[in-house]
Amino acid sequence: KKPLQINEEEYIRNIQNGSRLHLAKAITFIESTVYDQQHIGQQLLKNLLSFTGNSVRIGITGVPGVGKSTFIESFGKMLCDQGYRVAVLAIDPSSSLTGGSILGDKTRMEELSRHPNAFIRPSPTAGTLGGVHKKSRETMLLCEAAGYDVILVETVGVGQSETIVRGMVDFFLLLALTGAGDELQGMKKGIMELADAIIVHKADGSNEKLAKKTVAEYKQILHFLAPSTQYWKTPALAVSSLQKIGLDIVWENILHFQQVMKEKTVWQQRRKEQTVEWFKSMIVDRLYDDFFSSNERKQSMAKLEQLVRNEKITVSQAVDDLFSSNPNL
Amino acid sequence: KKPLQINEEEYIRNIQNGSRLHLAKAITFIESTVYDQQHIGQQLLKNLLSFTGNSVRIGITGVPGVGKSTFIESFGKMLCDQGYRVAVLAIDPSSSLTGGSILGDKTRMEELSRHPNAFIRPSPTAGTLGGVHKKSRETMLLCEAAGYDVILVETVGVGQSETIVRGMVDFFLLLALTGAGDELQGMKKGIMELADAIIVHKADGSNEKLAKKTVAEYKQILHFLAPSTQYWKTPALAVSSLQKIGLDIVWENILHFQQVMKEKTVWQQRRKEQTVEWFKSMIVDRLYDDFFSSNERKQSMAKLEQLVRNEKITVSQAVDDLFSSNPNL
Repeated sequence: KKPLQINEEEYIRNIQNGSRLHLAKAITFIESTVYDQQHIGQQLLKNLLSFTGNSVRIGITGVPGVGKSTFIESFGKMLCDQGYRVAVLAIDPSSSLTGGSILGDKTRMEELSRHPNAFIRPSPTAGTLGGVHKKSRETMLLCEAAGYDVILVETVGVGQSETIVRGMVDFFLLLALTGAGDELQGMKKGIMELADAIIVHKADGSNEKLAKKTVAEYKQILHFLAPSTQYWKTPALAVSSLQKIGLDIVWENILHFQQVMKEKTVWQQRRKEQTVEWFKSMIVDRLYDDFFSSNERKQSMAKLEQLVRNEKITVSQAVDDLFSSNPNL
Repeated sequence: KKPLQINEEEYIRNIQNGSRLHLAKAITFIESTVYDQQHIGQQLLKNLLSFTGNSVRIGITGVPGVGKSTFIESFGKMLCDQGYRVAVLAIDPSSSLTGGSILGDKTRMEELSRHPNAFIRPSPTAGTLGGVHKKSRETMLLCEAAGYDVILVETVGVGQSETIVRGMVDFFLLLALTGAGDELQGMKKGIMELADAIIVHKADGSNEKLAKKTVAEYKQILHFLAPSTQYWKTPALAVSSLQKIGLDIVWENILHFQQVMKEKTVWQQRRKEQTVEWFKSMIVDRLYDDFFSSNERKQSMAKLEQLVRNEKITVSQAVDDLFSSNPNL
């Protein structure tokens, strides 16, 4: 098998000139589990790093059924029509984690995906942390180098995904349904305090009145909670993606947020902190992966976990056993 | 220097017979950074493990000034007077982290500390994670083996301390002051959703009316939040530790919680999960500590962190550099 080679300069030029094909291929390299391909992806990113950072990074979360993809479709299309270039890191709906239906898949963000200013990249199922791919951050940077002005990162409320996405975006949007009381009981703990805006979605038709009531309820709760971002009062907004009501106000809020946070340097500081946090979490991941790369150790771990769970041995003992070269099981 | 030796059987017998001296010494062994002493501590715990688990573990948090030690003093004394044996893992107020005043230190929990049913152990400053000692969990287990029925674990809202304490107790109490609106803005994000009860403290004198209003406000907010524990509706309660009002209701709530959660097996399950989580976090700590045990690597890390922070290199590059045996800096 001949070693994989690409014309790096050509790739970089094409990505910067807006070739979706080259961007998509570069992302595939980054996401690859094959060392050679990963290396090529990292080399590309390294050479493009100085062209990153010029977008608004927006995270979007909400329970399944809240209409995340409908919102992204309408919101993204509005921005594209205004001349913005919009990249979407979407959840792959075929993933069993997301609860997306097969029926809905084919028409998912169909209009947006056809828009010349849009680029949609679904996360593959493998290597995801609750719908967020381990390489989402690098993918976002590649999209920025390709000149996208707005990056929308979709996430579902599984595992640590919201915290991970909050840790890579500037602005975090929480989509909610009408009837705050019931829904909030099922929401992830602390999720409201991660949000820079709460959108009460599907605020249309017979639902409109209830949506306004729900917005008022959220405002009341938000009044008592710590804001997600310093100097920012998290708003609650009613939005209909179907009737395209309120989408412009969401964008106005984001632009205002950007302006204030850049003035206060919160924007720049947060990005630096996010990068360092990412670095630290990658170190821990690497240490953990290396340590558990042997099957023998994985088996020891499983046995020790059972013993610890049933309080047969102390935790310190279990750790010592795991780290000793000859685990005494 | 002769090797450290203790009469293990004597220690175990004395700890079980209620000798505070031997319990205190065993904790000191556990907390020691000297290998020999640590080993003795672990051996003692190993032999006592089957006698642990029979207490109610209660975490107590709240901002400095909320009156945590006054509450622990009054609450603990009430329980001791009822015949319970109460152990307190207290914050060492001399620690700069806690914001405790030197003036207040001498009289801290003075009455409780003199009660024959009480045992107070302040965390040393070294090795603490926001006021929680790395060995707090083991200390708690030793106290249980010594026959304490109630363990109170104090924490301040620094770093990850609340999450760590929530991860080692059955019931988590949040102490708050009157005037919820203002205070909540300064509270740690998500803290309310960790609490199994919110206590509006200092509900006495001219503050009483405001305390009742604040309780009503918290109830309203709690209505919208996910409960900390399944099957449990987190109550908000007004308490005066000075006038000893409401302390009995707090205890009634805890006993009721214990009864319900044991019936639903949430109690047992949570403890098992907590032990396993503790095990996993100890593994990560150990991997991290081992990896950064060399000064050379610590220095590499500091340099790479700067490069990553200023976006001079990609995070993947920095990780690769850090893990390569000859970091190319």
